[in-house]
Amino acid sequence: MPDFSIFNAGPIVLQSGLTLRDTKIVYKTHGQLNTKKDNAILFATRFYGTHRDNEYLIGPGRALDTNRYFIMVPDLIGNGLSSSPSNTPPPFDRARFPDVTILDNVRLQRRLLLEVFGVERLALALGWSMGAQQAFQWAAIYPSDVERLIAIAGSARTSPHNFVFLEGMKAALTADVDWRGGWYINPPQRGLRAMARCWAGWALSQAYYRQQCYKDWGYSSLEDFLVGFWEGLFLNRDANNMLCQIWTWQHCDLSANEIYFGDFELAMGAIRAKTIVMPGATDLYFPSEDSAIEVSLIKQAELRPIPSIWGHYAGGAANPLDVAFVEQAIRELLST
Amino acid sequence: MPDFSIFNAGPIVLQSGLTLRDTKIVYKTHGQLNTKKDNAILFATRFYGTHRDNEYLIGPGRALDTNRYFIMVPDLIGNGLSSSPSNTPPPFDRARFPDVTILDNVRLQRRLLLEVFGVERLALALGWSMGAQQAFQWAAIYPSDVERLIAIAGSARTSPHNFVFLEGMKAALTADVDWRGGWYINPPQRGLRAMARCWAGWALSQAYYRQQCYKDWGYSSLEDFLVGFWEGLFLNRDANNMLCQIWTWQHCDLSANEIYFGDFELAMGAIRAKTIVMPGATDLYFPSEDSAIEVSLIKQAELRPIPSIWGHYAGGAANPLDVAFVEQAIRELLST
Repeated sequence: MPDFSIFNAGPIVLQSGLTLRDTKIVYKTHGQLNTKKDNAILFATRFYGTHRDNEYLIGPGRALDTNRYFIMVPDLIGNGLSSSPSNTPPPFDRARFPDVTILDNVRLQRRLLLEVFGVERLALALGWSMGAQQAFQWAAIYPSDVERLIAIAGSARTSPHNFVFLEGMKAALTADVDWRGGWYINPPQRGLRAMARCWAGWALSQAYYRQQCYKDWGYSSLEDFLVGFWEGLFLNRDANNMLCQIWTWQHCDLSANEIYFGDFELAMGAIRAKTIVMPGATDLYFPSEDSAIEVSLIKQAELRPIPSIWGHYAGGAANPLDVAFVEQAIRELLST
Repeated sequence: MPDFSIFNAGPIVLQSGLTLRDTKIVYKTHGQLNTKKDNAILFATRFYGTHRDNEYLIGPGRALDTNRYFIMVPDLIGNGLSSSPSNTPPPFDRARFPDVTILDNVRLQRRLLLEVFGVERLALALGWSMGAQQAFQWAAIYPSDVERLIAIAGSARTSPHNFVFLEGMKAALTADVDWRGGWYINPPQRGLRAMARCWAGWALSQAYYRQQCYKDWGYSSLEDFLVGFWEGLFLNRDANNMLCQIWTWQHCDLSANEIYFGDFELAMGAIRAKTIVMPGATDLYFPSEDSAIEVSLIKQAELRPIPSIWGHYAGGAANPLDVAFVEQAIRELLST
């Protein structure tokens, strides 16, 4: 038995003008929708994450309390479960999978909630990392239907430096001749491992490595961590799926559409949700200074950095103290 | 006419136990040694830098004033001019070039100064980045012969996070099948370009990219900068030479020798030089927090971060405001 459901969205025309045929959005819900349908929360997924990776905040008595809320976790396109380069039939498969934006995803999530559950309004939209990018987009594109917003270690628009960081990741992956322009026969092992070793320096902070926090995860040395955790993680990922989501990430801009025409301040100013933006205090690719700029453009927003040495991983499931800090913010915001 | 001299150091036994035969250290001097031989300054070179890259602080009336000081700029082993994988004859050439430490370099620089110039004491040892690593090593290994020390955007020991950053760079370079384990026939273009794109995110800060400072250098867009500056820079570099110097960099630890036996605090405590440590305030791989830790271990040291958005490039030749800030510190220290 799969642990998820599938929303068959049929053919959809993407922002790029291409049509994604037989579009599938995998999702999982937790808790019960009430009769007023006013207890829905959307908890978007991160880069290469699935609905399973979001369970760390969900449960009876947790911040996303299944006794009170109906929590929708939709899988981001390109994650290997929802429509992805790896599971789409020719001719739009693999290296020919079309470019998909955050807004394309959000519109599909909106349809899923409306068509399957009749949900129009969200009590809260939230997410970590690329999940935060989706939550921001929700709040800007459906401002009257998103009451609250929590963006954890993510941005409303990908910063130029973040874009450059991702250029490096792509270059490391695709330097491997076995990548073959996306038409690989076997996984491009060297490229996947190189990308993993490059990512390792970005995702966790200087202090994390200085304090050897990886030993708490059972890794006996730095090299053991680089191979055992990082290379192991990336070897389980499909190269084209990652490149698909990196494209989505790099082009994230909640104003890049026919509503806001690239007017970022206008789009940010349109957000009506009560908002808490929670960068990791030591995040190297979604730094607090970027979040501070974005908070200044939202009407009712608070900047609340996560006081953590876990770099970008602060606010993910990695560190219990950070999770508790995030849960506290969610509880506060939901009580208003 | 070459713009440099060569110190033929003969065969030397390295810390690794291997012998580097016919060792050559390229160097350039500026200004005149006085009769007391007490006006010598050692200005060490950075990763893949040469003596030419250090001219930005040297000249009549500059902080390193050629009217007053005798300035020695020795080229780091592996830079393509001093003994390097690219210029050493078989069988110790290319991928078989032996591992060389910062201390191996410093001992050769000491011999050069003594044997060619009769210089025993330094009025100042300084350097940027890997140059700072050499300056730290000088001050710890010859404490009574280094009066002053300025370490710009560098460390006495490579931090674990900095080590991980370099692991990523190596992995990106060597993911290219054309690298052939170091026995490349043609330069590994994809690997060099991948490494360049990865390095681009590390060397300059989030704010640098946000403010598009690359436009001041004549690059018309972000991609123009990534190809025109970064890929262009790395295509001119020899892969084995870079890997040689990265090994040196990763293993930098001024206590990793038979004097201090890895007792880092002892080695730092041995430094007698009046010291100013100048991290770039936004440096992502030699962050100020690491410098603060190192400063706390030195008897007479001041932490003076360079208030700059130029990331690691602060303190290099890139930005005139940063250069002026560094020159001010040099002048102050030399006047004591």
